[in-house]
Amino acid sequence: MDKFDAISPLDYRYYSDKLQPYLSENAAIRYQLMVEVALVKTLAEKRVCNESIAKEVEEASKKITASEVYDEEKRIKHNIRALVNCIRSKVSEEAKPFVHFTATSNDIISTSESLRIKEAVENVLLPELLELENVLIEIAEQEKDTIQIGRTHGQHAEPITFGFTIASYVSRLGGRILKIKEAAANLKGKFSGAVGAYNASSLFIKDAEEFEKSVLEKIGLKPGSHSTQLVEAEYVTDLMHAIVSAMGVMANIADDMRHLQRSEISEVYEQFESEQVGSSTMPHKRNPINFENVKSMWKEFMPRMMTVYSDQISEHQRDLTNSASSRFNTELIAAAMITASRMKKVMSKIGVDKTSLKNNFDKNKSMIAAEPAYILLAAAGHPDAHEAVRKKTLEEQDFISLLMSDKELEPYLKKMTEQQLEILKNPEKYIGLASEKTQKVCNEWKEKLK
Amino acid sequence: MDKFDAISPLDYRYYSDKLQPYLSENAAIRYQLMVEVALVKTLAEKRVCNESIAKEVEEASKKITASEVYDEEKRIKHNIRALVNCIRSKVSEEAKPFVHFTATSNDIISTSESLRIKEAVENVLLPELLELENVLIEIAEQEKDTIQIGRTHGQHAEPITFGFTIASYVSRLGGRILKIKEAAANLKGKFSGAVGAYNASSLFIKDAEEFEKSVLEKIGLKPGSHSTQLVEAEYVTDLMHAIVSAMGVMANIADDMRHLQRSEISEVYEQFESEQVGSSTMPHKRNPINFENVKSMWKEFMPRMMTVYSDQISEHQRDLTNSASSRFNTELIAAAMITASRMKKVMSKIGVDKTSLKNNFDKNKSMIAAEPAYILLAAAGHPDAHEAVRKKTLEEQDFISLLMSDKELEPYLKKMTEQQLEILKNPEKYIGLASEKTQKVCNEWKEKLK
Amino acid sequence: MDKFDAISPLDYRYYSDKLQPYLSENAAIRYQLMVEVALVKTLAEKRVCNESIAKEVEEASKKITASEVYDEEKRIKHNIRALVNCIRSKVSEEAKPFVHFTATSNDIISTSESLRIKEAVENVLLPELLELENVLIEIAEQEKDTIQIGRTHGQHAEPITFGFTIASYVSRLGGRILKIKEAAANLKGKFSGAVGAYNASSLFIKDAEEFEKSVLEKIGLKPGSHSTQLVEAEYVTDLMHAIVSAMGVMANIADDMRHLQRSEISEVYEQFESEQVGSSTMPHKRNPINFENVKSMWKEFMPRMMTVYSDQISEHQRDLTNSASSRFNTELIAAAMITASRMKKVMSKIGVDKTSLKNNFDKNKSMIAAEPAYILLAAAGHPDAHEAVRKKTLEEQDFISLLMSDKELEPYLKKMTEQQLEILKNPEKYIGLASEKTQKVCNEWKEKLK
Amino acid sequence: MDKFDAISPLDYRYYSDKLQPYLSENAAIRYQLMVEVALVKTLAEKRVCNESIAKEVEEASKKITASEVYDEEKRIKHNIRALVNCIRSKVSEEAKPFVHFTATSNDIISTSESLRIKEAVENVLLPELLELENVLIEIAEQEKDTIQIGRTHGQHAEPITFGFTIASYVSRLGGRILKIKEAAANLKGKFSGAVGAYNASSLFIKDAEEFEKSVLEKIGLKPGSHSTQLVEAEYVTDLMHAIVSAMGVMANIADDMRHLQRSEISEVYEQFESEQVGSSTMPHKRNPINFENVKSMWKEFMPRMMTVYSDQISEHQRDLTNSASSRFNTELIAAAMITASRMKKVMSKIGVDKTSLKNNFDKNKSMIAAEPAYILLAAAGHPDAHEAVRKKTLEEQDFISLLMSDKELEPYLKKMTEQQLEILKNPEKYIGLASEKTQKVCNEWKEKLK
Repeated sequence: MDKFDAISPLDYRYYSDKLQPYLSENAAIRYQLMVEVALVKTLAEKRVCNESIAKEVEEASKKITASEVYDEEKRIKHNIRALVNCIRSKVSEEAKPFVHFTATSNDIISTSESLRIKEAVENVLLPELLELENVLIEIAEQEKDTIQIGRTHGQHAEPITFGFTIASYVSRLGGRILKIKEAAANLKGKFSGAVGAYNASSLFIKDAEEFEKSVLEKIGLKPGSHSTQLVEAEYVTDLMHAIVSAMGVMANIADDMRHLQRSEISEVYEQFESEQVGSSTMPHKRNPINFENVKSMWKEFMPRMMTVYSDQISEHQRDLTNSASSRFNTELIAAAMITASRMKKVMSKIGVDKTSLKNNFDKNKSMIAAEPAYILLAAAGHPDAHEAVRKKTLEEQDFISLLMSDKELEPYLKKMTEQQLEILKNPEKYIGLASEKTQKVCNEWKEKLK
Repeated sequence: MDKFDAISPLDYRYYSDKLQPYLSENAAIRYQLMVEVALVKTLAEKRVCNESIAKEVEEASKKITASEVYDEEKRIKHNIRALVNCIRSKVSEEAKPFVHFTATSNDIISTSESLRIKEAVENVLLPELLELENVLIEIAEQEKDTIQIGRTHGQHAEPITFGFTIASYVSRLGGRILKIKEAAANLKGKFSGAVGAYNASSLFIKDAEEFEKSVLEKIGLKPGSHSTQLVEAEYVTDLMHAIVSAMGVMANIADDMRHLQRSEISEVYEQFESEQVGSSTMPHKRNPINFENVKSMWKEFMPRMMTVYSDQISEHQRDLTNSASSRFNTELIAAAMITASRMKKVMSKIGVDKTSLKNNFDKNKSMIAAEPAYILLAAAGHPDAHEAVRKKTLEEQDFISLLMSDKELEPYLKKMTEQQLEILKNPEKYIGLASEKTQKVCNEWKEKLK
Repeated sequence: MDKFDAISPLDYRYYSDKLQPYLSENAAIRYQLMVEVALVKTLAEKRVCNESIAKEVEEASKKITASEVYDEEKRIKHNIRALVNCIRSKVSEEAKPFVHFTATSNDIISTSESLRIKEAVENVLLPELLELENVLIEIAEQEKDTIQIGRTHGQHAEPITFGFTIASYVSRLGGRILKIKEAAANLKGKFSGAVGAYNASSLFIKDAEEFEKSVLEKIGLKPGSHSTQLVEAEYVTDLMHAIVSAMGVMANIADDMRHLQRSEISEVYEQFESEQVGSSTMPHKRNPINFENVKSMWKEFMPRMMTVYSDQISEHQRDLTNSASSRFNTELIAAAMITASRMKKVMSKIGVDKTSLKNNFDKNKSMIAAEPAYILLAAAGHPDAHEAVRKKTLEEQDFISLLMSDKELEPYLKKMTEQQLEILKNPEKYIGLASEKTQKVCNEWKEKLK
Repeated sequence: MDKFDAISPLDYRYYSDKLQPYLSENAAIRYQLMVEVALVKTLAEKRVCNESIAKEVEEASKKITASEVYDEEKRIKHNIRALVNCIRSKVSEEAKPFVHFTATSNDIISTSESLRIKEAVENVLLPELLELENVLIEIAEQEKDTIQIGRTHGQHAEPITFGFTIASYVSRLGGRILKIKEAAANLKGKFSGAVGAYNASSLFIKDAEEFEKSVLEKIGLKPGSHSTQLVEAEYVTDLMHAIVSAMGVMANIADDMRHLQRSEISEVYEQFESEQVGSSTMPHKRNPINFENVKSMWKEFMPRMMTVYSDQISEHQRDLTNSASSRFNTELIAAAMITASRMKKVMSKIGVDKTSLKNNFDKNKSMIAAEPAYILLAAAGHPDAHEAVRKKTLEEQDFISLLMSDKELEPYLKKMTEQQLEILKNPEKYIGLASEKTQKVCNEWKEKLK
């Protein structure tokens, strides 16, 4: 297959080699084989078959390719039976009966899917997110004292620091990392047969639940409280929720960064490579294409949670209306990883334009004093400070001068402390705990994610 | 307002008085007032104002109605400023400045919303879900030995018990209850001002973070790791996820029960009241309208998670593009509660038709033996048991007779134990651990949800 | 019911009296009665019953209230049978049998829902959208020559006019209005009985399809190509799609206007009323709350299309898993109308700040020349014009001066016409067909929507 | 690339060679080249460049591969500029300037995407859907007289025919085919430059709108009423809506067929191939895996409409937050085609089990008479026929016998015609217009889709 004959952008455009060992179809089949091997090893352990049979199966399973399995499936129209046939064709007559022994297809599928998803998240997605988190922490600490005008409704509000802005993402992304970690660790396997009642395994094994535990233990999984033909859907649903909501946090960073790069704001910029072309006809453009891409991935993948929620519903001991849809779950992991990776790359070379930060701040400097002015006046006993200040902001003159020279306000201004008046005159000092809080948040998350 | 002039089905049709104290607009404003009172009490505690002022504000806030606040909002186009004006109009000149002192609108809104959502969930939704869980546990225990044919793909598969079917919901719903509980307990408040940096409160209070903690403590909340103008969106996102996924479990129960009520299956039935009409023209119909309604509520409310995920994104220290959408969050709680309540009512009077259960089981009784047959033959050394059995199932004669009388299979049948042959001949004994597991699951969840 | 005891924001906050006659539950029942009356009138026409009976039923139906129907439903648990009982209780014994005669509940519901949705759209939503469209056309024509810098990726790109910006919405909204109109006109009714085969009506009426047509004609509807218990779901699905995609266009306008109001851009502003409060603590804020609300309504209601799509699926001749969800369809119409109404109000008083428009344009004035420069150089034979221009934009000096004084470029500059050089020197002339196109688009849509 | 290293199920599992010429990345680039060629041909036509240059570009474009373009993009980080560079590297110095002359990247992308989507739909998807429609028509006509019990709420309701069941899909799918056709034909191209105002093309060409029309005409497209950097999003949104709603109809067919295959119902069956394996451990199973797959594809792809709706919003003359998401649009077309293809295959070999149809019908035969009984009694003057019949259905005895022997009902029964009594006694005759309507629907759609 020519890569560019692929139809999915995940294959022809956003493909990452890091994902292949977990999320490709080759990987899926490799993980299914791991489960079949864990099964036969446990059978040997419980003396249902000989140790040598387990070894035979293990050896055979190393030689099986996805392509071979697909060819057999084409013939018999059943994917796991095809896998089993492939193994059986490579072992002795004696071993044949113990391949897949007492298992139902979905013991293998449910379990191997949990396993490869768990490992993809733990080995690829989480490390990527942690690296991004570290980049954010670094920026936050570095810029914790860099004054920035805080914005609400896209309007200048009160001062913060650029580090404080970033600290918000440090905290939110940190929280999501913990959620993903917890949900991945909580994925379950199963070995309870076609309807979950251990019908087949109980024919041969005394404690079929204990047997299930043994099989799963070999690959690092546990069973849940109950299963039908399926592991309960909620384990993977929780993980996908954690992942999608982490993409939401990254989309928020991306939107903020895009807007801070607007021509009129330009507080941050993406450092371009010298050969990079901004636009095919507008050579001067420096477009935030990476952040746009991050937002766009979120728009594509967030709605897929609806599919995940729909797959919670399966009639009776299972219908198979998740046959196609659940195959796409892994795409969500791929998307999150690709997004985290891009975000890390672009944030680690983000530039902070201090001149613009100052210019933007100064634009409404005296207006910014309106909030402390109103509060200090109120505290000094002014009976309607909010209204008094509001009206003053509607006038054309400089607000601070108007304020300081207002005869009616004089008695109230006199009650203020030096420090309070200082803030009124220099609104860039009106940053509250922005710096301290930034450092505190960084410390907290460095600790929590250790 | 005439109830039937309402536009939302939640008001004219599905309204529940239990929800009013938390989810109505009257409740919203009552909770906002609670936060304003907690604020002024803390101000008094920290000696920023007198104790008597705190009392004045508390008294005033008891007299305020939603209608009054809305009238003031109409005039000034700002909801929290309207609330503040209403309080101020009811207190002395001395007290006026300390109403809403150093707070930003969203300190009040974010905090009061967290609080009323938390209490709605803890006081109304969770009790309702727990009662439903108890009904399910009761049915599961009662029917743990009632044989039912397990179904996969809508086809008869292997035997279970009806209690085992129900145990699946006990486990899944139990898990969701814990998730909801955890997420509700984790909701946060905030008192960090317009951009989250404690700009205003720091003007007067030394340790503004400690001050925030004191205010929130009074109403049973805590602050998060970081806030902007908003509490981090993820706390409520996690709760809504837990709620929506619980509705998913209930929708699954509903689908299963609907199908078990099909004319041809009729293993369960909803007990009708004597005056109840099944259909306007088909008097004989017994329609599963309650289960249909449960599924329908899920179809309406599940997609709303997309809104919740969209509201994770807020530009800079906040945009206000969640002004309308976040108001609908409470509808999700209402929907979950209404659903749980209906499900509890209908499940507590569900009838189990043992004749139908037996008839359905018997229909494919001998076919059911195919799985143990194949496994036992394989274990007995048959080199291609699956294929041998599969071909036999395609023939027209009774499968068990065919099996037992097959000369080729004789050597393998001879190797089987009495118990194993017993199962082949009486497939209703092929239920594995269905009964034991049912009891175990019930015990586990009774313990966990104590 | 106290309005503020309502749970849905559509009832306690965004309620509009214009919607009540169509979208309230009182309206729903009024429309059901209209269909019952149309039925009995047709029965009289076909001489199945007397003219006087039809009159009796018509008179009776005028006296019925939603409250009365709900009381009866509480007793018998069936809404349409309750409605029928209410009518029957008000007519003579002779008339009783002909109430609802040969109809199934859903003949009444499907038909009356199509009718009230159609009328709500045609009488309320479409007029509101048309008024908004007219406001947009007015602005576009007025500002068709007002220079604005065009933006792509949030970056300054090439010049347009503010009218041209608005013309984009004129065209897109115009297109949606036509779609909504077409879809509303295409809604269908049905009178084909419980499973769609005219079983009951065929007992008495020779041509049951012709009878269906007669009933529907009386209320201005037609039947579709086929029905089951339900009108085919696609008619309403198409309408909801048209409505949701119209909300998408309005959300796009809202986003653009929000960003054009950013403190650093401020090309437009919302005119505040003198008593209006911008922020509870920041008296200087002028927040784009109306545009934020429009975006927020889209975030809330767009995902509900997923419910509409889910309701396309109904098992066999119908399941009732749309019992709750389809009741919420009308909320989508309400939301669209509320949004259109707000958008119209705010756009009709939008201010255009020509100073900011000019300042923003001038900021990158010479950079803007980069595109025509590259193209004119290329056309003049420069072998690598894009690269030559791109490099020049990276230098610190004024681009136009650099360009004009470059010895290497001299031969190419000489080949240009006066008009072309004029544009290079005065980039505000580089607006292409912006003005003409604006007028053309306005004319086109005035014509199409006449 | 090994096919099984792909991550998307669309590439490793559901790939269809029919889709490659339109939906692969190789195809995307081929279509972009087609647009570049159309451009230079029009330039020659308008005498902006020589005819020979157009030929050079056309020849060059034939030699370009996706792989080559991607390599260049890697270097310069811009996909269309990369494409342009590839063409330029293959033409004379004289021709170079006229490659992509006056075009912006998105003139090429928007136009080529419209074109390949249009052709994929017209050449692949629509033919597949039409073949499916023909299969459905064939079944409907063949089974138009085969009695089936109609079902509502999963309960037996009134009789229809199996052909009538299928006619419902004929009509609904037919309607969707027309919608898709109309929406595909309505896709637009654009050649209006970076912000839609024809800035660049107006530098050289007198009537830039006419020039745009000429370019597009060459590839069978038209411009819309207005464009920015983008073609208006609504054209593709309408198409995706039509496609998704067609998948909804197919999902409904799939659900119905799945349920009709339930062990207890088994009115239809999928003919298995002799080598096909139903289950890995339950050899007797005949699982409706194809219908399950159809439903599952719908669950995966329906939510993607949310992405399409989100992509309606693009800030100002465009942001690029659809850079990734819009690439996935083509997956929706692929999914619909794969679904239609599978549905066609399975429906064309569906078996109808007439014994089961009859057995199921007979099960509630006498109960089925309840509806005509109630209506005929009412028409005969019984004052409360519905209630009288309802009570009778609650008794244990045979309903028809009870009815016929009821003394109280005698006077009403006497008023009935022979034909009416005949139906009461033989409920299988109570099928209304089922057969006639089936044929009528088939005729109508054969005509409309000719």
